[in-house]
Amino acid sequence: MAAVLQRPHAAVLCLLLLYLTGGLSIPDPKQREALIKLEASMQTGGQLVLTDTEQRLDARLFKMKQEELEREDFPPAMHFFKARKLIRNSPIFKLLQKMPKGGALHVHDFSMVDVEWLVKNVTYRPHCHICFTNDQSIRFIFSSQQPKPLPHCSLWTLLENLRAKTVNTTDLDNSIMGNLTLFTDQDPEALYPTQALVWKRFEQIFQAVFGLVTYAPVFKDYLYQGLSQFYMDNVMYLELRALLPEIYDLDGHTYGKAWALKTCQDISKQFVANHPDFVGVRIILTVNRWGIDIEKMVQVVEEAMALYRDFPDIMAGFDLVGWEDRGRPLWYFRDALSLPVDRGVSLPFFFHAGETDYQGTEVDQNMLDALLFNTSRIGHGFALSRHPLVKELSRKKGVPVEVCPISNQVLKLVKDLRNHPAAALMSEDHPVVISSDDPALFGASGLSYDFYEAFVGLGGMRSNIASLKQLAINSIRYSSLTPNQQEKALSLWQRRWDKFVSENAFW
Amino acid sequence: MAAVLQRPHAAVLCLLLLYLTGGLSIPDPKQREALIKLEASMQTGGQLVLTDTEQRLDARLFKMKQEELEREDFPPAMHFFKARKLIRNSPIFKLLQKMPKGGALHVHDFSMVDVEWLVKNVTYRPHCHICFTNDQSIRFIFSSQQPKPLPHCSLWTLLENLRAKTVNTTDLDNSIMGNLTLFTDQDPEALYPTQALVWKRFEQIFQAVFGLVTYAPVFKDYLYQGLSQFYMDNVMYLELRALLPEIYDLDGHTYGKAWALKTCQDISKQFVANHPDFVGVRIILTVNRWGIDIEKMVQVVEEAMALYRDFPDIMAGFDLVGWEDRGRPLWYFRDALSLPVDRGVSLPFFFHAGETDYQGTEVDQNMLDALLFNTSRIGHGFALSRHPLVKELSRKKGVPVEVCPISNQVLKLVKDLRNHPAAALMSEDHPVVISSDDPALFGASGLSYDFYEAFVGLGGMRSNIASLKQLAINSIRYSSLTPNQQEKALSLWQRRWDKFVSENAFW
Ligand SMILES: [Zn+2]
Ligand SMILES: [Zn+2]
Repeated sequence: MAAVLQRPHAAVLCLLLLYLTGGLSIPDPKQREALIKLEASMQTGGQLVLTDTEQRLDARLFKMKQEELEREDFPPAMHFFKARKLIRNSPIFKLLQKMPKGGALHVHDFSMVDVEWLVKNVTYRPHCHICFTNDQSIRFIFSSQQPKPLPHCSLWTLLENLRAKTVNTTDLDNSIMGNLTLFTDQDPEALYPTQALVWKRFEQIFQAVFGLVTYAPVFKDYLYQGLSQFYMDNVMYLELRALLPEIYDLDGHTYGKAWALKTCQDISKQFVANHPDFVGVRIILTVNRWGIDIEKMVQVVEEAMALYRDFPDIMAGFDLVGWEDRGRPLWYFRDALSLPVDRGVSLPFFFHAGETDYQGTEVDQNMLDALLFNTSRIGHGFALSRHPLVKELSRKKGVPVEVCPISNQVLKLVKDLRNHPAAALMSEDHPVVISSDDPALFGASGLSYDFYEAFVGLGGMRSNIASLKQLAINSIRYSSLTPNQQEKALSLWQRRWDKFVSENAFW
Repeated sequence: MAAVLQRPHAAVLCLLLLYLTGGLSIPDPKQREALIKLEASMQTGGQLVLTDTEQRLDARLFKMKQEELEREDFPPAMHFFKARKLIRNSPIFKLLQKMPKGGALHVHDFSMVDVEWLVKNVTYRPHCHICFTNDQSIRFIFSSQQPKPLPHCSLWTLLENLRAKTVNTTDLDNSIMGNLTLFTDQDPEALYPTQALVWKRFEQIFQAVFGLVTYAPVFKDYLYQGLSQFYMDNVMYLELRALLPEIYDLDGHTYGKAWALKTCQDISKQFVANHPDFVGVRIILTVNRWGIDIEKMVQVVEEAMALYRDFPDIMAGFDLVGWEDRGRPLWYFRDALSLPVDRGVSLPFFFHAGETDYQGTEVDQNMLDALLFNTSRIGHGFALSRHPLVKELSRKKGVPVEVCPISNQVLKLVKDLRNHPAAALMSEDHPVVISSDDPALFGASGLSYDFYEAFVGLGGMRSNIASLKQLAINSIRYSSLTPNQQEKALSLWQRRWDKFVSENAFW
């Protein structure tokens, strides 16, 4: 999409500025109105021409927002864990749930399905063993025999037996659930006072979930269930960041990345067959930037190139994940990341970059380096607004930022989402998409919660139905789908959008 | 100052962008280095050429910053009330205290002097009466007779008598002190959970201080003491936002704005006579935007025009103060604010504007309106980065933003100062000055604490000695001093700067 064409006409702007800098006498209300309109036209969606029905819905949304802003407890100003209940009751949120939101382009494989499903469905399956680690976490494994003990962990117990011995299984299930998500009813500020602590807990949860979701039957069901939950939230397409770890069977068989990719492809096809208005899922292979050296990174990139060649339909590209501030910067891995270009082999990148509050550090250069390595999108880009040159580069190259407001808040980059730096990006129609990163870990689901935060928090009274429409369109335009696939997805989306608008514009 | 000249050469930028958007193969380390340098050159101070000695000091500062960033408790990420102790022990802060910082352009009249001086000096003067309000606050009055009781307040007690009857006067003094500042050793988040509450307390404190500082002898001493404290903090010039309320005598005489202005002028002259390297103080007359109607605003503006005509040396201009979100927007007062231009009379404006987290509200248009009314500076402009057109207008017109980091944090606009939106402004050398707003209310003093937050928090590893130098220069260039006065002030500052650099570059 030609981002340049969407900017306000430079000539108009220049003329106005020249006139104004010449010094005004008394401000002319008409000119003031024109300036306010001109600025509004610069924001995300500001160049879209709305139908009458869309304008009606917009008027309705405007009223709803005014009421939302007058509330004592303004949800985007609060921690999401405290705000969730309020958001659920918000008429805006209910409308956003119904809205066809396009694609979710930044979601991680093992955090798409709500943890209740994991506990109520997965841990109740036969052969599920649990053990308790020394550091207050849990591990799971499915096995037909007694599994070998893990270091720093209690002996494995068959969960079925444990439940039989437990008086209050609801308590047990709730306790398990609490170990599989960061979400809590306690005070999140007290529970996670620092970034280091919340990331530590993040990693622990990942370990706890791991034994459940890498069990082959669950791996398949989890993906299907994940697609269902996003589909229910009116998301029509997914790009999943996936580690594609070794998958195991009850009898000890294991399966590699190719099997996992093939499985994802099968599940995707199956889901689309059952839901013809869903487009499918594509996979971005990820590796943790922690504890990996250059040599190993070379191997991983080589593997990614081979998989991209062998599974062009399902495989979208490659990315590094994990806490950026504590991991190696992209530039450290430059030789490995140059391999595809070196060898004339194609491998799109979708780098997490700029998920940091620190400025001028080595890590803070990741966004520039991501662009130098021709990344297709920037994951988070939280620090982008402080990098005028990188920002301009991202705009000129049409490389969007994947904005995940709730993730940034829970992982303690920003407290009050009105201050999220992407608010500035959206005010100038910088290419952005909204996503949910790890919804299950944050107690969210699908995209609607993050759309709420972006629309009400980042956007304030200014973002409108056109912003929402543009964000949905962006999520298709900036996806890794081919131009043809994009056209198909867009026309599918447009039909659903028109229906949504006409069903909700009148009340 | 021609802000345009300080931007990186557009041609260089364009060439680089064109080259890059053509698609790179493997990133060239030299080109990458050039891009990083180019971006660094775009920030505040990025165009200054440093001497060898300045570069040495810069290297020292860089090391100090690295150590500061490695600390578990990073002060700019914490509430200032908790961070103050850490900041006081920071070697960077100690250096910033010694640094000649130029002028303080955004400070309010009755919050310049630390409250300890108010209690230990002022309340110990004869004839000081105190009363206790129903809403847990206090009031003061100096009077040779028993003063008339206030509504919603206890009877007046002579503080001297109260102290004589009190066993522990230290406790009493501490309790009084606690009523004269927002600063607290308790958890500030718990004590001031909402903006409404912190602003309410702010207004209460203002009422409590009022009876002390509007007593004529104290009014004079307070100003002199204020200048001393800023002078001790190596600030050479002040522009004070002043309400110039009615000043009273022991015998019931009262004095108006003209008297107050004349007194400020005398004190300023006296202080400069005693401290020849101090430039003086100028006054920006302010009125609270709360509870004032258009008619009254017309009167106030007329009075301001008269005072500006009669006291051209001391009087700098006019401004509105008070909680912006709850007050009337500037546009509401447009007829009153147009009076000077209407009548061909000069009255510079220095509007508080954009001290808000809400976007797209009426109040959020204050920055645009301030510029349309030809404001000389924008007070706070916290919301500016979300207004691309207003931002461009402010840049083109050379209208700087007065950034007061600690104020914005204490008044709950932003929690972690690394996320202060002025970080983005400084990354692109938007015209800014750093100031302290109400240092006594926040437990700060002078400018050094706010310089620390701007330099370490907003700037991260990126801001450097050139940023500091530019900020000091900006504070003179963007002052209301005449060009001649600015040149004199600048050469005075330059001498002190060179001394500061040479004394601290080697260690
Ligand atoms: Zn992510
Ligand atoms: Zn102020």
